[in-house]
Amino acid sequence: MSRIGVFGGMGPSATVDFMDKVIKLTNASRDQEHIPMLVASLPHIHDRSSAILGTGRDPLPQLLAGIEVLNHAGVGVIAIPCNSSHHWYDAMTRHSAVPILHIGKTCVAAIQPSSASKVGIFATRGALLSGFYQRELHDKGIDFLIPAPDGAQLEVDQCIRAIKAGQLEAGGAHLGRACKDMVAQGATALIMGCTEIPIASRYADLSGLQLIDSSLELARASVEFAMERGWNRPGWDS
Amino acid sequence: MSRIGVFGGMGPSATVDFMDKVIKLTNASRDQEHIPMLVASLPHIHDRSSAILGTGRDPLPQLLAGIEVLNHAGVGVIAIPCNSSHHWYDAMTRHSAVPILHIGKTCVAAIQPSSASKVGIFATRGALLSGFYQRELHDKGIDFLIPAPDGAQLEVDQCIRAIKAGQLEAGGAHLGRACKDMVAQGATALIMGCTEIPIASRYADLSGLQLIDSSLELARASVEFAMERGWNRPGWDS
Repeated sequence: MSRIGVFGGMGPSATVDFMDKVIKLTNASRDQEHIPMLVASLPHIHDRSSAILGTGRDPLPQLLAGIEVLNHAGVGVIAIPCNSSHHWYDAMTRHSAVPILHIGKTCVAAIQPSSASKVGIFATRGALLSGFYQRELHDKGIDFLIPAPDGAQLEVDQCIRAIKAGQLEAGGAHLGRACKDMVAQGATALIMGCTEIPIASRYADLSGLQLIDSSLELARASVEFAMERGWNRPGWDS
Repeated sequence: MSRIGVFGGMGPSATVDFMDKVIKLTNASRDQEHIPMLVASLPHIHDRSSAILGTGRDPLPQLLAGIEVLNHAGVGVIAIPCNSSHHWYDAMTRHSAVPILHIGKTCVAAIQPSSASKVGIFATRGALLSGFYQRELHDKGIDFLIPAPDGAQLEVDQCIRAIKAGQLEAGGAHLGRACKDMVAQGATALIMGCTEIPIASRYADLSGLQLIDSSLELARASVEFAMERGWNRPGWDS
């Protein structure tokens, strides 16, 4: 089916932000030139980060159920604008008849190794423990650093929580402080490796850092996948 | 199924704006307190306004197919953030196992008859010819006016077209000029009866007019429907 499947709700605003990016990346002058999307925004899925840390319930059955909803409804590819959920990427992929784009791989693929001398990773504690960003960067020979667990990571945690609660300015303030700390430690680029962080970045001064937006890179990969297959061209009863 | 079904893509940005409103209207401090949504963003549907005016292809088979997608995927109610498509509301409702909220009825229900002495209607030419806004306002005894077809309506048409093409500032400029004309003709309130118009309104100075946002009122009705039934409470495998 010539539609992008979006498995969202993790969180809901990040899903809207992702869809907005897909729309803006599509070169369209009228409705009929846009790419069809089927979006399952299922916010009740257990907290992914807590589960990876061993302090929350396992979300895998819910993640697989969400993948089923999209496969059943008819999509040609699935994008999941939630980084932490990619801890279960292999299991979700095995459960899906259609390919799932990997947010971390698309994000790291966007980094030019020469330009980024040291890349900070902002993500949930769960995603950092899962380690897929570190592995991708290591494989590409890119130097990286992660926030101190009892330092800047506390600000990252609070940033993510604030955005999920709709407190955008507060999210921006936490992000700004976390970034300052990373710059002090030598970071020249930053992976916004949690899809709430790009929303917070609109409310923070992040000048001096090259920003790599995981949500934007996933949107780019999704639009590319769809455009290569002509999904933007009306084919449905036209 | 305890999920809001959103039949969107008409246009795509209006769908994102509608979802954003649902999220902001939901009193939630974390992902798990939000309302699940299934969204079919199907932008290839033939232009609704042209069809009503007799100059474009009939979108009804595509509209019914979209309703089927949502019913099949499992939703408990359907919201369609596109005013013109409500010309086919009765046919879509007959085709749906679950209720469909009517954007025009929810919008006019939000108007206090005492406060609005004269309500302007900004919508597509198709929606105006369909006449559902005029009928609702007439039934409620509210005085209304519509833009002159060769005057302010030209600005409304261009506003809608600009937003669909992603030209937000241009959309705002057209809307501002259309509003000035309506105020000159005695309008004290304005129904933004096309879901692209609230997006344009962020880029225009509309002071002096009470604004009634069809997309926001549909989002309010959707959230109310879901909250009354407890859809925000995790029930799915929790």
